[in-house]
Amino acid sequence: MITGKNYIGSSKSSKGTITFKTFNPQLNVENENTFFEATNTEIEEAVMLASAAYKSFSKISGVRKAVFLNAIADEILNLGDALIETYCSETGLPEGRAKGERGRTIGQLKSFAALVEEGSWVDATIDTAQPDRVPMAKPDVRKMLVPLGPIVVFGASNFPLAYSTAGGDTAAALAAGCPVIVKSHPMHAGTGELVASAIIKAAVTTGMPNGVFSNINSSGIEVGTQLVSHPGVKAVGFTGSIKGGRALYDLASNREEPIPVFAEMGSVNPVVMLPSALKNRGVDLGKVYAGSITLGTGQFCTNPGLIFGLKGDGLSDFINTLGEEILKIDPMCMLHPNILGAYNTNKEKAVSQNNTNIVANYSSDVKDNYAQHGVLTVDGDVFLQNPTLHQEVFGPFSIVVQCDSTEQLETIISNLEGQLTGTVIADNQEEFNYNGVIAALQNRVGRLIFNGVPTGVEVCPSMNHGGPYPASTDSRFTAVGIHSIKRWVRPMSYQDWPNALLPVELQNENSMEITRLVNGELSNNNS
Amino acid sequence: MITGKNYIGSSKSSKGTITFKTFNPQLNVENENTFFEATNTEIEEAVMLASAAYKSFSKISGVRKAVFLNAIADEILNLGDALIETYCSETGLPEGRAKGERGRTIGQLKSFAALVEEGSWVDATIDTAQPDRVPMAKPDVRKMLVPLGPIVVFGASNFPLAYSTAGGDTAAALAAGCPVIVKSHPMHAGTGELVASAIIKAAVTTGMPNGVFSNINSSGIEVGTQLVSHPGVKAVGFTGSIKGGRALYDLASNREEPIPVFAEMGSVNPVVMLPSALKNRGVDLGKVYAGSITLGTGQFCTNPGLIFGLKGDGLSDFINTLGEEILKIDPMCMLHPNILGAYNTNKEKAVSQNNTNIVANYSSDVKDNYAQHGVLTVDGDVFLQNPTLHQEVFGPFSIVVQCDSTEQLETIISNLEGQLTGTVIADNQEEFNYNGVIAALQNRVGRLIFNGVPTGVEVCPSMNHGGPYPASTDSRFTAVGIHSIKRWVRPMSYQDWPNALLPVELQNENSMEITRLVNGELSNNNS
Repeated sequence: MITGKNYIGSSKSSKGTITFKTFNPQLNVENENTFFEATNTEIEEAVMLASAAYKSFSKISGVRKAVFLNAIADEILNLGDALIETYCSETGLPEGRAKGERGRTIGQLKSFAALVEEGSWVDATIDTAQPDRVPMAKPDVRKMLVPLGPIVVFGASNFPLAYSTAGGDTAAALAAGCPVIVKSHPMHAGTGELVASAIIKAAVTTGMPNGVFSNINSSGIEVGTQLVSHPGVKAVGFTGSIKGGRALYDLASNREEPIPVFAEMGSVNPVVMLPSALKNRGVDLGKVYAGSITLGTGQFCTNPGLIFGLKGDGLSDFINTLGEEILKIDPMCMLHPNILGAYNTNKEKAVSQNNTNIVANYSSDVKDNYAQHGVLTVDGDVFLQNPTLHQEVFGPFSIVVQCDSTEQLETIISNLEGQLTGTVIADNQEEFNYNGVIAALQNRVGRLIFNGVPTGVEVCPSMNHGGPYPASTDSRFTAVGIHSIKRWVRPMSYQDWPNALLPVELQNENSMEITRLVNGELSNNNS
Repeated sequence: MITGKNYIGSSKSSKGTITFKTFNPQLNVENENTFFEATNTEIEEAVMLASAAYKSFSKISGVRKAVFLNAIADEILNLGDALIETYCSETGLPEGRAKGERGRTIGQLKSFAALVEEGSWVDATIDTAQPDRVPMAKPDVRKMLVPLGPIVVFGASNFPLAYSTAGGDTAAALAAGCPVIVKSHPMHAGTGELVASAIIKAAVTTGMPNGVFSNINSSGIEVGTQLVSHPGVKAVGFTGSIKGGRALYDLASNREEPIPVFAEMGSVNPVVMLPSALKNRGVDLGKVYAGSITLGTGQFCTNPGLIFGLKGDGLSDFINTLGEEILKIDPMCMLHPNILGAYNTNKEKAVSQNNTNIVANYSSDVKDNYAQHGVLTVDGDVFLQNPTLHQEVFGPFSIVVQCDSTEQLETIISNLEGQLTGTVIADNQEEFNYNGVIAALQNRVGRLIFNGVPTGVEVCPSMNHGGPYPASTDSRFTAVGIHSIKRWVRPMSYQDWPNALLPVELQNENSMEITRLVNGELSNNNS
């Protein structure tokens, strides 16, 4: 049952007087529940509890953390239809998407459970002593990754489950041994509260310390600002706009003790279509990309916002088909009137730039909160000189850039901002003739895709979801996959430390049988 | 031969008119050579060359990078006595130290050469395709670490070789595939130029692109500011003061495209001496710590600046012995009159605080630029309330804090700023009775040491040199050891990418026979 209250540790709390409601974009009405913004006192309590919880939670075994993470997954499933219904009522997204995202969220929790249960993720490294070494004895030094401290996670508007309350950031931080305070996204505060209740239930039944998780409501920016500024908070995870992510990054960098912020922000996900592919399958590509551009009403961070080709019949065929096919797709609902409003503003801004041509613009009337998709084309030289056209239009909209030459294409790619993904579409091994373009693309992105679409982020160890700024604030980390745990940990060395005082992962016995680097060699044995 | 010129790539350059000289603190005179500050044009050229060099250098094989790194080591040795003499004349440090530091520098270069020649450091991760997976085909995804781009390294005053021109930051960045621009430390610009000449010679003879390395002279802050602000620079390494490191961090964070700064800054390296150990060997500990406090005239970032004990006879014996023994040690030269000046100012500031007692204060006359070492004691409650006493006094000086109780000790440790190291001195397994103190200490440091001294940083894979702010600006990375390469790289994923276009580390054949995570299992085989 949704109460609208915050979870301050395991206690429901509504000390404040400022309230807000979520919105059902399909019905174009406010939802029933009233949510209470957290007060200063509640924020202070949540951080105090998290700091206290860190003392024990940072040291519990991987096996116990796995039990906790798996229990969260079970409790989310136990929420049953109520979760799916709330999700749909707060996002306008269909039931299938809700269930798919729930599956992904559960899969993420379970993969982190498996990771910490196995235990090798701590990168245990051991160099044993050489007391007889000359001119100086070599000490025994052992190193592993340890949790940073309490983490604040900001839920994403477009992934109420997989990138929000119990999403990838939270799962990775809990797996690392860091307590988590979620600043729930106000557009789906009910979904957030339900998931928070599942986490709290799992924490209680598996004996985790109170404060290992809190869920904070707020519809403004003040609460988030207070959380990120709090000295007890040691790192921040965020998924959202460049403006929002950069504001948090600036805040965190300007603290007396600066803390890491991993913000996954904007991306236009450039797609380069090479001539043979356009010639052979321009029409097919038009159909496929009409689908990718409109998938989830274009509300994915991997939405293909920019498509590049060399001028010619192949590119023209592609543009024509893309324009025709996208207009065949039924308009879909956006997450919230505010997101639709931003989409319309940004789309109009792009369309109104000089020397652009609108290829497709869904102009029939649509239901309230439904997006009218569109495709624009522009010549390479115009694009190169107009930074407005480089900016993300969050929604079902894309720009096709018609380049005069390979050189111009390479120049344009080199001058793009950092991106999550870059895609190359090629036939007959023509990719080998575009080394400069591909090298430039690699230098701007976190993931390269060949003959596919950027939408769809496979959750697996080799996935990188991140990229050069502004795709993320720190390209050295991924937000998806098991390695995303590295955002929330730091190395810790123990020199000549008594075996019995060492973390079990570094003890001679290697009772967990994890893989360790012992005197330069990987080993599962004792040391 | 020292020319005083900058290396802009492989070209010697002195376009500017502002000059400076280095200083011989032992002789208390300026050294002969005149150094030319780099101009805006020279800085611009260095970054342009580095950006161009990155295109090829980022893609050359580990084997070729190893040849380059080993050639740098050889060329540094080939500088022979000229390097050692210049080093001594610019630092006042003895020949033995110079040779030891040269050995360490060469060792670091060779260990990075071995790392990249072997190749597994790229953390290659492969998840092969499952075209028949339902409901959706799984793509082939492969990930590895790739270099960030041109790196700026600021040389350290106290390690003219091991943490400067060809020191750990530079070796790690070159190993990663990043071109390096060194902002040479003005106190040892001659040493810097000689080492730079060795790097340039190695680059030329091993066929590295021009611009893979530049060496920039400057005695002020303007040149460093310009380098860190330049859009072509992608990360920064720094070793030095909190003030300097924080200024660079702020600059980098406020860029339009923020970039990572790894600054290794101040640390007072707390040492906790437990009662049994003090009782059994207070006198011995006094002798050992007199040596550690004055080692290298106290000019190590791991110098023990704070020593904690519980009041009692053992602690009193230790303090008496420490005071006596430290006065038996001959005063030694500091690196530069400015560093001596700061030492005297900071020491006087500490000594003049209320309710402190000076235990030892070398008061006899000393030679110009020689430091007068000292030891201060203070009660726990006074220390807790006076932040001035928590600050680093860079030089041969330490404060012994006499605590009333274990609780007070734990409170004091919990309230310390972040540190590189924390040391526990214990006998008869008494360490097991101080879990709270030790947990608090671990939470404030990057390395724990048992029954030893913090000075001496073993260069090995399990070393962590870094720690919570302000020990470093990002506790998630080490500045020493092979894993310090991770500061300069980012993950890059390739989805359904043609095998022949993949980096060799990710190709099916695994021709380098590196260790890879293939479908969740570590393997040296092909995939």
